[in-house]
Amino acid sequence: MATIIPVAPFDYVVFGATGDLTQRKLLPALYHRYRDGQIPETSRIIGASRTELTEEAFREKARDALKSFIAPFDLDEDKLDGFLAHLSYVHIDALGEDGWPDLKALLDEQPDRIRPYYLATSPDLYGPICRNLDRFGLIGEKSRVVLEKPIGKDLKSARAINDAVGAVFPESQIFRIDHYLGKETVQNLLALRFANTIFDRLWNADVIDHVQITVAETVGVEGRGGYYDTSGALRDMVQNHILQLLCLTAMESPLSLDANSVRDEKLKVLRALKPITAADVQTVTVRGQYVSGAVGGKAVAGYQDDLGPEAATSRTETFVALKLEVRSWRWAGVPFYVRTGKRLPKKHSEIVVQFRASPFSIFPSESFGREPNRLVIRLQPEEGMKLEVMTKDPGPGGMRLRPTDLDISFEETFKQRYPDAYERLLMDVVRGNATLFMRRDEVEAAWEWADKLLKAWADRPEPPRPYSAGSWGPTASIALIERDGRTWHEELK
Amino acid sequence: MATIIPVAPFDYVVFGATGDLTQRKLLPALYHRYRDGQIPETSRIIGASRTELTEEAFREKARDALKSFIAPFDLDEDKLDGFLAHLSYVHIDALGEDGWPDLKALLDEQPDRIRPYYLATSPDLYGPICRNLDRFGLIGEKSRVVLEKPIGKDLKSARAINDAVGAVFPESQIFRIDHYLGKETVQNLLALRFANTIFDRLWNADVIDHVQITVAETVGVEGRGGYYDTSGALRDMVQNHILQLLCLTAMESPLSLDANSVRDEKLKVLRALKPITAADVQTVTVRGQYVSGAVGGKAVAGYQDDLGPEAATSRTETFVALKLEVRSWRWAGVPFYVRTGKRLPKKHSEIVVQFRASPFSIFPSESFGREPNRLVIRLQPEEGMKLEVMTKDPGPGGMRLRPTDLDISFEETFKQRYPDAYERLLMDVVRGNATLFMRRDEVEAAWEWADKLLKAWADRPEPPRPYSAGSWGPTASIALIERDGRTWHEELK
Repeated sequence: MATIIPVAPFDYVVFGATGDLTQRKLLPALYHRYRDGQIPETSRIIGASRTELTEEAFREKARDALKSFIAPFDLDEDKLDGFLAHLSYVHIDALGEDGWPDLKALLDEQPDRIRPYYLATSPDLYGPICRNLDRFGLIGEKSRVVLEKPIGKDLKSARAINDAVGAVFPESQIFRIDHYLGKETVQNLLALRFANTIFDRLWNADVIDHVQITVAETVGVEGRGGYYDTSGALRDMVQNHILQLLCLTAMESPLSLDANSVRDEKLKVLRALKPITAADVQTVTVRGQYVSGAVGGKAVAGYQDDLGPEAATSRTETFVALKLEVRSWRWAGVPFYVRTGKRLPKKHSEIVVQFRASPFSIFPSESFGREPNRLVIRLQPEEGMKLEVMTKDPGPGGMRLRPTDLDISFEETFKQRYPDAYERLLMDVVRGNATLFMRRDEVEAAWEWADKLLKAWADRPEPPRPYSAGSWGPTASIALIERDGRTWHEELK
Repeated sequence: MATIIPVAPFDYVVFGATGDLTQRKLLPALYHRYRDGQIPETSRIIGASRTELTEEAFREKARDALKSFIAPFDLDEDKLDGFLAHLSYVHIDALGEDGWPDLKALLDEQPDRIRPYYLATSPDLYGPICRNLDRFGLIGEKSRVVLEKPIGKDLKSARAINDAVGAVFPESQIFRIDHYLGKETVQNLLALRFANTIFDRLWNADVIDHVQITVAETVGVEGRGGYYDTSGALRDMVQNHILQLLCLTAMESPLSLDANSVRDEKLKVLRALKPITAADVQTVTVRGQYVSGAVGGKAVAGYQDDLGPEAATSRTETFVALKLEVRSWRWAGVPFYVRTGKRLPKKHSEIVVQFRASPFSIFPSESFGREPNRLVIRLQPEEGMKLEVMTKDPGPGGMRLRPTDLDISFEETFKQRYPDAYERLLMDVVRGNATLFMRRDEVEAAWEWADKLLKAWADRPEPPRPYSAGSWGPTASIALIERDGRTWHEELK
């Protein structure tokens, strides 16, 4: 196991403490950090929500959550009790005044603490909560606020949220989280690119043929359809996660790993993204909407059915495939194909860097002479990284080649369990390290680009193309890449 | 296991059939090929030597050899009997006429066979044996002759051997063997370089800082001192093995894998080798001779003692380290450091391609920010290949780096046993594939270069520097590379 360096003592205040994200992700992440000895004994985790609960009841709810979302192997009863003893609870009205004095009293017990406020609530509440934090004197130099996506549904609404939060917190204390950036493999991409001469030399249009980013989900929108129907795949996945992954893949070397250096470079990528206009929409974009089909051998309903009868004419896309261009010296002529969708055949997220084929093969034709090299960075379901190279088929026969995977494996280090991205990000907030969080201008640049595409789509009459649940999206998305003589990457095993 | 494709039926005639090489290497190699089903049932292996032996006695001698040099796990009694049934024996006088008619009678039984003559004898006999093969009508279109090193001790003597052999065999039927070229990892170097765009892009002076080739032996010259004292490390190891490895590392892409295309490119490297003159000798060469010391915890005598009292003033080098230059567009400014010696701490042969350090590190200083990448191709004792890269130290801590080895492993394929280089090369002779064998002009170009260095050394008064048996050679060999701010590669584990 890697060395664990404890962070400074903190009071972590989690708004939305009884919600799904807190129970499923944040409490388990904090438990694991506690179990590994990274959380100082005097630190507190303070749940805040409009639900009326005693501290005891909150702890029991947390205990239930941890028992559901943590593997029994990792759940040590003593550690669990120890962790729960760090939990407090405040019943609070985000929009009103109730509970705020209680929170203040609790926090004042230890006024010099690092104090992150994690807003695991509806984005509507970001502004009101921030105003109350300010009004009740809860913001100091050691305060931080953590915002979950979605930050807006377009540039205008994103600016409104950023303005409201920015009115009380300086930008350096605002942590816009994207848990994709907390993944080991994503950070390893930075290490590979900027700590290895050999990869640096390969990272440009001379050597790279194209890049693919896939974020595939098997779930539909059951239950969450109301929100989703006002959003769609572009807003829900591309504007944030996929563009962030694209930025880390495409950015120039930052001056340092400081938050602002890294974010300056990511911002440049967003600004170099060629806007997609109405004229390009048909050639470089595909929108899809799932119809009934089967996922994992189980029959599932279509999107319109999931929404319910009142929404029978939704034009919201549940799938999107795009061919993107980064207009820079490094990337000119290298397409970035991205796709994401619901009800796809498997939960699978990856970045694929496809190197150019060799121009010529000296090997006999039976020997796969020209399989191009590929770097595959897998984010889900299991994180991993592999470099595909051609090696000699071993043995005293002829000189035949075979594809071989060089695995950049983390398994040896994580014998038992692979840390979740939230674990790192929650601790980065305490450390005040915003490198893996999004800056205001990044979020807004991404919306500026997305708004243009949304407008281009709105200007056209075609509804999204139907695709069967359990397929890889509309056939047009296959055509999008095949037209260029390329193919979506698929694991054969 | 890789697919085994049987070769065409053959009669393999091995001169020197009772000698060490045949017993230790050739018969075990042929047994393994038989066991794996690569040798057609009608093929014969015909031992020839001046020792008077019945066929039965030769088979028993072979049985003893196989039982000594093959692991019991691989020695299947049925297969062993089956293999021995393929063996014949002819008592023959290389220099006279005895036995030749017997060999002819034996071979005439199957006149259309592929017929390799393996000369596992003293090089003095290469000429006489070839003359007799011709005289007794044993050379046809399907005949091949295999020559072991040393082919000469300088350009002049090499030419004499090549002339004698070439007088009766066309060059296309002459197979000058260097078993280093039969190693899986050496051939994998060709696959990596010429079947992978990414390595091709890295293979030049822009990206590579320097190359190291080490061939280290633990043995001394016990018993073989008489021959060795007329040879020395340069003739014994550098002129052939090390220069061949250097050629495969440095050569341009051949037009194809055909023997002549590959050898044309290797020849160009030999011709691009900067000759070492008397003026350079002190700065780019180190000669050493071992004195008593300890290897593997056992006290051993010095070279002069190994030779015996009559040779007390030998100036023969048992160690040599050189800084070589390949004068070409690709390699200008990239030194090739090579070293080889007897009585070194361990048996260890490798090629190390050291890439340049990154010009700048964006990572915190504690994080090994600038460890340069390295490709290590290990030939002995266990073949293996690894690419050293920097990755993120996994875990939810900071962004620390750590060196990680990407192993290009063959183990998965060879569950039980790693084929010896001779297995491949013996079959390549049957297949008529000379790609991994040396052409006359290569051998002579290597001697031409070696002769200049030998002359430069001869012109200087210094004897070889003493080094303790069990050390890595004279300290001057460390200084040779450290002067340039570089270090010999050492495995830490």
